[in-house]
Amino acid sequence: MPANKKLLILPGDGIGPEVMREVRRIIDWMDRRRSVTFEVKEGIVGGAALDATGSPCPDETVAAASEADAVLFGSVGGPKWDSLPFDQRPELGILRLRKDLGLFANLRPAVVLDPLADASALRPELVKGLDIMIVRETTGGIYFGEPRGIHVNEQGKRVGIDTEVYSEDEIARVARVAFDIARKRSRKLTSVEKANVMQSGRLWRAVVGEVGKAEYPDVELQHMYADNCAMQLASRPKQFDVILGGNLFGDVLSDLAAALTGSLGMLPSATLGAMQPSGKRHALYEPIHGSAPDIAGKGIANPCAQILSFAMLLRLSFGMDEDAQLIETAVEKVLAGGLRTADIMSPGRARVGTTVMGEAVLRELEKLSA
Amino acid sequence: MPANKKLLILPGDGIGPEVMREVRRIIDWMDRRRSVTFEVKEGIVGGAALDATGSPCPDETVAAASEADAVLFGSVGGPKWDSLPFDQRPELGILRLRKDLGLFANLRPAVVLDPLADASALRPELVKGLDIMIVRETTGGIYFGEPRGIHVNEQGKRVGIDTEVYSEDEIARVARVAFDIARKRSRKLTSVEKANVMQSGRLWRAVVGEVGKAEYPDVELQHMYADNCAMQLASRPKQFDVILGGNLFGDVLSDLAAALTGSLGMLPSATLGAMQPSGKRHALYEPIHGSAPDIAGKGIANPCAQILSFAMLLRLSFGMDEDAQLIETAVEKVLAGGLRTADIMSPGRARVGTTVMGEAVLRELEKLSA
Ligand SMILES: [Mg+2]
Ligand SMILES: [Mg+2]
Repeated sequence: MPANKKLLILPGDGIGPEVMREVRRIIDWMDRRRSVTFEVKEGIVGGAALDATGSPCPDETVAAASEADAVLFGSVGGPKWDSLPFDQRPELGILRLRKDLGLFANLRPAVVLDPLADASALRPELVKGLDIMIVRETTGGIYFGEPRGIHVNEQGKRVGIDTEVYSEDEIARVARVAFDIARKRSRKLTSVEKANVMQSGRLWRAVVGEVGKAEYPDVELQHMYADNCAMQLASRPKQFDVILGGNLFGDVLSDLAAALTGSLGMLPSATLGAMQPSGKRHALYEPIHGSAPDIAGKGIANPCAQILSFAMLLRLSFGMDEDAQLIETAVEKVLAGGLRTADIMSPGRARVGTTVMGEAVLRELEKLSA
Repeated sequence: MPANKKLLILPGDGIGPEVMREVRRIIDWMDRRRSVTFEVKEGIVGGAALDATGSPCPDETVAAASEADAVLFGSVGGPKWDSLPFDQRPELGILRLRKDLGLFANLRPAVVLDPLADASALRPELVKGLDIMIVRETTGGIYFGEPRGIHVNEQGKRVGIDTEVYSEDEIARVARVAFDIARKRSRKLTSVEKANVMQSGRLWRAVVGEVGKAEYPDVELQHMYADNCAMQLASRPKQFDVILGGNLFGDVLSDLAAALTGSLGMLPSATLGAMQPSGKRHALYEPIHGSAPDIAGKGIANPCAQILSFAMLLRLSFGMDEDAQLIETAVEKVLAGGLRTADIMSPGRARVGTTVMGEAVLRELEKLSA
C-alpha cells in the first residue's frame, strides 16, 4: 500500500507529548490491523522548539507542516517560558502555523458523549446527544483589523481602538466551509452576527445568504443575532447543528458551547485552510485543552481530546469516515465502561491514568474491528 | 409629606400598558399604606406615540423624562408599525431617550428566585440563589464607533467595517457605576474584555484597574476574558456577583446570564446616566422582555418584570431599599405559593393572568407590612 498519507505530529509542551503517545499507538495499530499506512513525521514547536532552536516555530517545522497532508498538534506553553519577551512566547508557534498555512476556518465540535451527559451544568435531558459544530473565522475580524492601538487624544486622554473588517471574500470562503459541513450533517446552518447594530454583521448576513442561495440551496440557512444565540445555547442547545460565526462571536460562542458539554478535556478541534487546485487543503488538528503544565509528566492527563482530534483528522483530511467513527465509538465505549481520567472523574467510576485510558481505547478498537 | 419623587411612566405598546397597570396599583397602595407619595406623570412613547403625534418619542416625552427623577418604561413595538421606514420605528423611542438622557450604564440583574430554580436549563443546585448584576456600557464601543459602513474596495469587493472605540473617561464612568454597586453588594467585581487580542480591551483592563486601585481599594477586582466569562457563566454561574463589560460583551453576557435563569419574564433592568452636581442622575427602568404583541390584550402577560423594575427604581433612584426589598419579597412569596403566569408555568402550579398575579403581589405586600 502506498504511503500517501503524510502526517506531521507536533506534540509540543506539557501534557502534549504524553497524550500524543496514545495517538501514536493508535496509528501503529491502524498500520498493523487496518492496513492504513501513514507517513508520519514528528516536529518540534512551542517551548520545546524554543529550547532546541531559539524559535517557537522553526522554519523546518513550517516547511514540514506545509508539505504534510495534515498536522496533528498537541499543546504549547508552560511556566518555564512565561517570562520570555512577547516575541519568544511558545504560543507564537501555533499562531505562526495558522498564519503561514492560511488556516482561516476553525472547527469546534461541542459533543456530549452519552456516558458524560451528567458532567454538564445543564440538565442531562437538555444535553444528552448534543452534537454541535461551530465554525469560526480565525484570520480576520476585530482581532486583526487596522487601525488598532491605544493613542492619546487632544484632551490628553487615552483612547483604545480596534477595527472589525470583513471582506465579502473572507466571509464567503468560511461560509463555504460551514455549508460543506452542514451538507454532510443535517443540512441546517445557523449563521451568527449582529446585523442589527454592526455593518460588518450586515455584510456577513448578506454574503452568507448569497452563498447559500447560489451554491447550497439544499442547506437550510438561519440567521441569528449573536446575543440571542448565546441565550439559545444556554437554554435549548440541541436546536443547533452547525453554527457559523466571525472571529469574535465564534470565539465566545464556541467556548460557551464547549463549556456546556462539561467535559473540556474531551474536545478536539480543527483549523482548515483554503482548498487548493490540487484538492488538498492545509489542516491542523488539536485538542482545545492547553498544555496543563500542572499535571504534565504525572501520567494522569486525559488523552481523549488528542485521540478525537486524530479521528477528526481522518474524517476531514483523509475522508476516512469509517475509521474516524471507529475511534469515536471506541472512546465512547471506554467511557461507558466506567473508566475516567481525573478531569472527568465522577462518583462510582474508575479513575485511571493516560496510558490505561489509551490502552482501553486500543482494546475497544480491536473488539470493534474484530 | 412633600411629593418630591417625580416619576414618569411610559407604558408604551403591546403588553406594556397592562403590566404597568399592576405597578400603578402598587404605587397607589404605597401612597395609602406606606405614606410615600410619588408625583406620577404618564407619557407616550413607541407606537402609541407614533399614532398620536407622528413621532416615536415626542419632545414632550423627552422633556418630561428629563424633569423626572426616574422613568419607568414598559415596552414598545408591534406588527402594526413593522412596515414603517427605519426613522419611524417605535424602537427609536427608547433609543432617543437613552441618548438624550445620556444613559450609559445598563444594569441587568440575573436573579433566580427560589420557587423558579427549576425553570433554568442548568441543574437547580447550580442556579438556586443565583444573584448576578451585569453592568454594560451602552453608549460607546463597536455599536456606535466611526468609521462604520459597507464600501466597495479597489477590487470591486464589498467590505464591512465597524470600529470599537473607548476613551478612558467612558470606561472610568461606567466602571464607577459597577464599583459602586459592588460596594453595596459583596465587594467583588469581575471586569470582562479581550485584553489579550484587543487594544480597547487592553485600555479597558488598565482603566478599570486604575479606578479600582485609586477609588475602590475595598472592592476585590478580577479581570476575565469575555470568552472565559461565557464558559464560567455556563458552568459555575454562582462564582459571580457583579460583572462589568463594554457594550458588545455586556450585550452577549447579560443575555446569556438572563437565559441561565430560565425565566426571562421575571427580569428587570435599569439604565443610568451620569451623576449630576445636584446628586441626581437620569435613570430609566424597564423589563428585559419586549412588548409581546402576540399576547397583548389577553390579560395573560406576566407583570413581575415590570413590578421588579419598579422595585429596582425605588432602590437605585430613591434609595428606598426597604420598600424595594418588600416588593421583591412579595413577588417571591406569590411564586412560592404556586401562582404562575403562562410564561413561567410548570406542572402542579396554578396558572393565572396578569391581574390575579398583580393582586396576589398586593395581598403579600399587605401581609408583609401588616
Ligand atoms: Mg476563546
Ligand atoms: Mg442583547
